Amino acid sequence: MTQSHPDAERPETDEVAGRSGDPEPRRGLSRRGMLGIAGATVGAGLVGIGAGVAADRAVLGASAGDSATYPFYGAHQAGITTPAQDRLHFAAFDAAPGLDRAGLMELLQDWTVAAARMTQGRPAGKYGPASGPLDAPPDDTGEALDLPPGGLTLTFGFGPSLFRTASGEDRFGIASRRPDALVDLPRFPGDALVDAISGGDLCVQACSDDPQVAVHAIRNLSRIAFGRASIRWSQLGFGRTSSTSKAQATPRNLFGFKDGTANIKSEDQSVVDDQVWAAHGDGAAWMAGGSYLVARKIRMVIETWDRQQLGEQERIVGRDKGEGAPLSGGTEFSEPNFLALAKDGGTKIDPDSHVRLAHPSMNHGAQLLRRGYNFVDGNDELGRLNAGLFFIAFQRDPRKQFIPIQKRLAANDLMNEYLRHVGSGVFAVPPGATEGSFVGAGLFS
Amino acid sequence: MTQSHPDAERPETDEVAGRSGDPEPRRGLSRRGMLGIAGATVGAGLVGIGAGVAADRAVLGASAGDSATYPFYGAHQAGITTPAQDRLHFAAFDAAPGLDRAGLMELLQDWTVAAARMTQGRPAGKYGPASGPLDAPPDDTGEALDLPPGGLTLTFGFGPSLFRTASGEDRFGIASRRPDALVDLPRFPGDALVDAISGGDLCVQACSDDPQVAVHAIRNLSRIAFGRASIRWSQLGFGRTSSTSKAQATPRNLFGFKDGTANIKSEDQSVVDDQVWAAHGDGAAWMAGGSYLVARKIRMVIETWDRQQLGEQERIVGRDKGEGAPLSGGTEFSEPNFLALAKDGGTKIDPDSHVRLAHPSMNHGAQLLRRGYNFVDGNDELGRLNAGLFFIAFQRDPRKQFIPIQKRLAANDLMNEYLRHVGSGVFAVPPGATEGSFVGAGLFS
Repeated sequence: MTQSHPDAERPETDEVAGRSGDPEPRRGLSRRGMLGIAGATVGAGLVGIGAGVAADRAVLGASAGDSATYPFYGAHQAGITTPAQDRLHFAAFDAAPGLDRAGLMELLQDWTVAAARMTQGRPAGKYGPASGPLDAPPDDTGEALDLPPGGLTLTFGFGPSLFRTASGEDRFGIASRRPDALVDLPRFPGDALVDAISGGDLCVQACSDDPQVAVHAIRNLSRIAFGRASIRWSQLGFGRTSSTSKAQATPRNLFGFKDGTANIKSEDQSVVDDQVWAAHGDGAAWMAGGSYLVARKIRMVIETWDRQQLGEQERIVGRDKGEGAPLSGGTEFSEPNFLALAKDGGTKIDPDSHVRLAHPSMNHGAQLLRRGYNFVDGNDELGRLNAGLFFIAFQRDPRKQFIPIQKRLAANDLMNEYLRHVGSGVFAVPPGATEGSFVGAGLFS
Repeated sequence: MTQSHPDAERPETDEVAGRSGDPEPRRGLSRRGMLGIAGATVGAGLVGIGAGVAADRAVLGASAGDSATYPFYGAHQAGITTPAQDRLHFAAFDAAPGLDRAGLMELLQDWTVAAARMTQGRPAGKYGPASGPLDAPPDDTGEALDLPPGGLTLTFGFGPSLFRTASGEDRFGIASRRPDALVDLPRFPGDALVDAISGGDLCVQACSDDPQVAVHAIRNLSRIAFGRASIRWSQLGFGRTSSTSKAQATPRNLFGFKDGTANIKSEDQSVVDDQVWAAHGDGAAWMAGGSYLVARKIRMVIETWDRQQLGEQERIVGRDKGEGAPLSGGTEFSEPNFLALAKDGGTKIDPDSHVRLAHPSMNHGAQLLRRGYNFVDGNDELGRLNAGLFFIAFQRDPRKQFIPIQKRLAANDLMNEYLRHVGSGVFAVPPGATEGSFVGAGLFS
């Protein structure tokens, strides 16, 4: 195993001892990706010792545990209809000045290789966090070394600014490929957006049942991107606020209410096909099998909410707090009856309640596959928790789904008094990659 | 169940239907605590309807699940030798201007009642999040309604400023009771402390295996404190970085190394008694059975660390990265041999390595019971992850333990190049409360 290399580049055929038969992705990291990791600290004459000793500890951990593992390659990217995991680390990246088309493609290739490895519980690169040459930085940062895959999914998206900058520049020669559905979101009434936590050329959604696994993935993707893209903003979340599978119980948001009862469930294949996946006839052919991700960081004014009467909270939501049943009666999954009359003559469900305004019947049948998370980012200077909902929704076309629904909510939702939208992003999420290719390859062909 | 009340105060004997035999704490929330929750929104003439429908859902959830539940009352507070849970929400509070001795005692009483309930998987107050009068705010905010206790522990502490403010004021008539061991921490070389995330009159450490449970607890304690104390700073953490029980595997910190191999384990009773618990002869008798908590928010310069050679990382730590064994040989739990010689004539373990400088043999036998967590607070404006270690250590006397150890580390630790201490706090953690009394009662008797 002792070898000399003329520089920091490791030969892609350099397999670790005892790992034959391992499903190594066909492509290794690009030379540039390796340099990004190695930085300036690697001199000449690497000596490969110690490799194989603990090369893929994480894989052993995974097979021993009962943690879920989802395939990375496929028709669709994972992390959309995948049963929502419990933890999130979401990151928006901006391309570095000077990155060109070839560089962007190389970055996506490198990210694909690393994502395919990490989602299977393997280190980000061939030389694990605790193996390989002692005089080179490890390919992986190591904090997930003993952890199972934790159901990790990594989902990549392209923001409008990737196609054309605010100043009109087409840095990557892809402006003409921008899908019509990837619109800039309009300003909604009440928006209090902060530029530093909005937008981004690229996004990566990392979901896992273990926050350390999700953080590890974003950290290593960020490291691989060094010099090519850097994190613009990022968000950690916990306690998924929506179910995406009928097998999952409905969780609660920080208002204390069940959230996502009426969410699209992955088992409803026809609804998913109709509302989530972009189709060939939709416009940009390279997006067929992809989806559009809208992210909104929604601060909740929880101290004020907490002082609100229970009955008023329920009126605002349109559901009861304990069971989550619509105020028109029944149980959690009963369809709300917006016409049911209360004793006082009004409707049992307030016309401006959240459940009514967001309901498909009020929105020409439009639905969203929501996949949001609760967040607490410490506290503000007044001692109030800086907390709320990091809303994520996937859809086939934001022009027909998120935008009209949010317009209606922003105008009239009783809940608005307790919400403040502070961050926003929209991203085209390409279809899944095939092995040997990379995420978003269709954009460049 | 229909009753009229003259104001927002609910009679303490008002038991919820079907809950007889339930181990209700003897004391309810103080009238002031109730007003804090109710705020100004509750008018006269409460009508108690709906109570009992879903009053204690969380208890049902707990008994159905297999989640750990730790007793709140006892000789010591829980959350110290308790096997370290996976998630943290730590909050430091400042007393409100005008809070007096009686008000502080009442706050501690209210916190005790709520903590005793929540740690057993029950709502913070008698009227659960989804029960009780519709025209009053629920006693509990609700987001943990369906969740098991998740091993929740709540650990309370008193900062130096509680005893005497920076301007010398003895607001609560307790200055003379300040334990000698509760010293203000000195400034250590390299400290880059930010005042807004340091100090605090009071602290609450919430640990759970579910972040939503920990967040729920801090939120409800903060709510109960309304008008009496407010959050000065708070910190979320994940992936405990130390084991406190021999039954736990050693986790990894964000340097990718195992952390806490040599930590005090709760099974070593004589070490715990010697190094963790304050004793009667130590000075302040009211602290016997308590401990002293030092918190340090330590930002890791992970981007620089990640570009460091594996061999250099291991030299800095003094252990190998994969197994966690000392570089003098053996396995993770082998004792390091600081005299073992390397081929080049130096010692195998660098004299300035972290493992050597922190070792009890270098510190007159002093040890710490560490209970820290990894944190990622998004990213900074340069796109670097704002990440590191939220260090928490319990000890019998910081003057003999944390302070001399940290002086040695701050002066010479090779790791310092990659660390920046940005937050700091020290708190006297009183012994556990007995049922019917409250945490810290001894301070006032």
